[in-house]
Amino acid sequence: MADPRFYSVGGPLTLRKLAEISGAEIGGPADLEKLFSDVAPLEVAGPDHVSFLDNIQYAERFARSKAGACLVRPEYSDRAPKDMVLLLSDEPYRGYALVARAFYPAPVPEAGVAASAVVHETARLGDGCRIEDGAVIGAGAELGDGCHVSANAVIGDGVSIGSGTIIGACASLAFCTVGARAIIHAGVRIGQDGFGFALGKEGHLKVPQLGRVVIGDDVEIGANTTIDRGAGPDTVIEDGTKIDNLVQIAHNVRLGRGSVIVSQAGVAGSTVVGEYTMIGGQAGLTGHLTIGAAAKIAGQSGVMRDVGPGESVGGSPAVPMRDWLRRGAVVDQLAKKKDK
Amino acid sequence: MADPRFYSVGGPLTLRKLAEISGAEIGGPADLEKLFSDVAPLEVAGPDHVSFLDNIQYAERFARSKAGACLVRPEYSDRAPKDMVLLLSDEPYRGYALVARAFYPAPVPEAGVAASAVVHETARLGDGCRIEDGAVIGAGAELGDGCHVSANAVIGDGVSIGSGTIIGACASLAFCTVGARAIIHAGVRIGQDGFGFALGKEGHLKVPQLGRVVIGDDVEIGANTTIDRGAGPDTVIEDGTKIDNLVQIAHNVRLGRGSVIVSQAGVAGSTVVGEYTMIGGQAGLTGHLTIGAAAKIAGQSGVMRDVGPGESVGGSPAVPMRDWLRRGAVVDQLAKKKDK
Amino acid sequence: MADPRFYSVGGPLTLRKLAEISGAEIGGPADLEKLFSDVAPLEVAGPDHVSFLDNIQYAERFARSKAGACLVRPEYSDRAPKDMVLLLSDEPYRGYALVARAFYPAPVPEAGVAASAVVHETARLGDGCRIEDGAVIGAGAELGDGCHVSANAVIGDGVSIGSGTIIGACASLAFCTVGARAIIHAGVRIGQDGFGFALGKEGHLKVPQLGRVVIGDDVEIGANTTIDRGAGPDTVIEDGTKIDNLVQIAHNVRLGRGSVIVSQAGVAGSTVVGEYTMIGGQAGLTGHLTIGAAAKIAGQSGVMRDVGPGESVGGSPAVPMRDWLRRGAVVDQLAKKKDK
Repeated sequence: MADPRFYSVGGPLTLRKLAEISGAEIGGPADLEKLFSDVAPLEVAGPDHVSFLDNIQYAERFARSKAGACLVRPEYSDRAPKDMVLLLSDEPYRGYALVARAFYPAPVPEAGVAASAVVHETARLGDGCRIEDGAVIGAGAELGDGCHVSANAVIGDGVSIGSGTIIGACASLAFCTVGARAIIHAGVRIGQDGFGFALGKEGHLKVPQLGRVVIGDDVEIGANTTIDRGAGPDTVIEDGTKIDNLVQIAHNVRLGRGSVIVSQAGVAGSTVVGEYTMIGGQAGLTGHLTIGAAAKIAGQSGVMRDVGPGESVGGSPAVPMRDWLRRGAVVDQLAKKKDK
Repeated sequence: MADPRFYSVGGPLTLRKLAEISGAEIGGPADLEKLFSDVAPLEVAGPDHVSFLDNIQYAERFARSKAGACLVRPEYSDRAPKDMVLLLSDEPYRGYALVARAFYPAPVPEAGVAASAVVHETARLGDGCRIEDGAVIGAGAELGDGCHVSANAVIGDGVSIGSGTIIGACASLAFCTVGARAIIHAGVRIGQDGFGFALGKEGHLKVPQLGRVVIGDDVEIGANTTIDRGAGPDTVIEDGTKIDNLVQIAHNVRLGRGSVIVSQAGVAGSTVVGEYTMIGGQAGLTGHLTIGAAAKIAGQSGVMRDVGPGESVGGSPAVPMRDWLRRGAVVDQLAKKKDK
Repeated sequence: MADPRFYSVGGPLTLRKLAEISGAEIGGPADLEKLFSDVAPLEVAGPDHVSFLDNIQYAERFARSKAGACLVRPEYSDRAPKDMVLLLSDEPYRGYALVARAFYPAPVPEAGVAASAVVHETARLGDGCRIEDGAVIGAGAELGDGCHVSANAVIGDGVSIGSGTIIGACASLAFCTVGARAIIHAGVRIGQDGFGFALGKEGHLKVPQLGRVVIGDDVEIGANTTIDRGAGPDTVIEDGTKIDNLVQIAHNVRLGRGSVIVSQAGVAGSTVVGEYTMIGGQAGLTGHLTIGAAAKIAGQSGVMRDVGPGESVGGSPAVPMRDWLRRGAVVDQLAKKKDK
């Protein structure tokens, strides 16, 4: 299914294996040895493909799909086409992810340093690293085993990177340490000095930024995202946090473990975000805030006050989600009344 | 007029030729063989320059301009200075574009592969391609005739690019096909894997992204914009669509033909945008929406529901433009009343 | 204190010297020859460190700090721990900046052109320039003395750059002139052609962009920010203006001297911004506006009308700050009443 110029599929896999990998239960009698060749979206899948239904908005596609097997929540099983084998799971998307990873295991990059890459003589590379053309690795930098530095990326002096981490094309890292198995996408900027000025009519005086960026294990950072280094304290991105494209993380920010920051959001200086927080797209958080664990910040909201653990907020300025919805309803009602 | 370090002007061109190129009608008697040497903005143009009035906000500059000729709508002709030759057109900006293109034809890049560029031995380049210093072109990539790959750009394995397409400095393309005559500006990121995770307390599980980015002919993509590849389906940008700087296009999005997306807007995953849609700056569209053809999304709006063909919406959350304006007016009125 | 992989501290400095550098007054009797070894944040500073209290939110940290000396406003001196030497100043952050710059003077880059850099034979470099690996400098480009071009940056044909200016990794500059002592961070895009199209059903016609970007002295431009060149007039960034990360500056914009533009803000085409204006994060200004000197644009606001000198505006669409706050209060009140 996937374009062979870009992907090569493994498999095939038996139904038995698919159930085992995904942790799903097979809905009804089925041939456990039946072979499946690939994953595919509902609308294009055929009899030897595995698909999934996660978003109920696509139930119609599910009902009409020709997929041979499908990961789906038990409650939707009655909408399935007659010949489809159901892989029942409360987390069909996670199940699909596991199956897709089995069909398409992450390719192991071919080790070696490209001829046009420049690795400083004092830099240390672990075993099996791949350094592509035009990449530049500075003095004293240290890379763990199996790192993959893509073409034209720049790793600054003294930067340390854990094992199995991938650095995208044209990304630049400086004044930072990165954990293991992180994915830093193309064009990411890490470690430039933050926006620190003592403002004044006689000229804005640049304040030396003396901290670092400290990035944990299993962090993912989206394309063209920018993360400034700390002013004195460090900027910290804890383990397992996932950041989307074009996000701005200012100096001294701390993002707790497992947080998710959607595209084009921005977090201003010194704000501390608790673990497993969700920040919607284009949301903005001002500086020096404390955001509690598992808080939810709606897209485009403008957070100007602390948010408690587990709280949901929306609007600009952001208020508790319930208040935001209520305000919208009140204004809507007034406008309609006016209109009569 | 234009800085000769950066531009070289062609011409001169006769008034007759200017009228022919722009499709404008000459307002009143004039010497058709009169020569014009250049285009220039109203406020600096001289007697042998051609200018234009498009935005009526600048009528005053028009009235005082020393431009020898000017593209202008017929209804403003009575505000013209006495000696100005008028080139009357209902589309003066389009007329100006055509004239400016005649004075400044797009330079044909000098063909050749720079010494420090790295082109994989299995990549295929069409005739007349220009590959600048530090560019890296991967295995199996295919470029049509007359492509221009700027310095330090990275074209990934298997990427295909149509004839006459320009790739800006430090851009990176992967898992994609690009049509003919496209312009991909500096720092653009195409084809990285989208923000796809099965979220969970035990860690967010990365979902393999198995699609591509498919970009049509005559598409323009602004600097540092990011376009993620599809998760299974492709991310598709249809012919003639123009995307500004710092825009985010998520996985599986489809942007219809001739759409215009202004700077810093974002479109979340799987949203389908109809042809000739206009999306204002900093607008955000959530995922899985359908936006009808020729819809207009105001700047900074937050679109959370489907938008019908030809509809205009504004606000966050976005509502029909008329409702948005009415709500604003009602709140304003209340605040003023309160104030008394 | 600062990680020695990235920073090397100068000093030590006497208390007398610290007072002199910062312009602060020593609060009470103290040993003027006492030596201090470093700066540090309040919560980690020890007896031979200098710290500062600027944001009163951190008064508690100040009261508990073990810093040997601290820059602080006179009015907070009574909250100081007993053994702390106070450096009293009305601008403690500026004082801190000066002290930190004394401990950590900006490193003088080692001059030289890296082996893998490509400098066109017609480009001219001033004395003491540092050109790092993979950097590409085009035909006719001119760099003043002591410029630092980081790895994989691209300086286009004809670009001129003043003395002591720093260009970050993977940045690209074209069709521009840059003043002295500017800092252009990693991934910045300067001089690509702006978003200029004569829109139409028969295809959007690209309008040649014939201007430049003209950047003054002491300007700082944040990572991955984009600045398009003028359409005919130039895009101008005046002396001393500071632009944060991921900002969009469209064609023909003029940013007055000493302005401050916070992350992810955007300024649309032909808008003129007066000197010492502050534009908050994620704010958007539409095109063809005039913003008066020392105006303040709140974060996330959407400015669609001219703003007078010294005015403060907020909201989307933006209104005077006082009105914006009043509207918020009115809606809040209504929603609460409704709720009862």
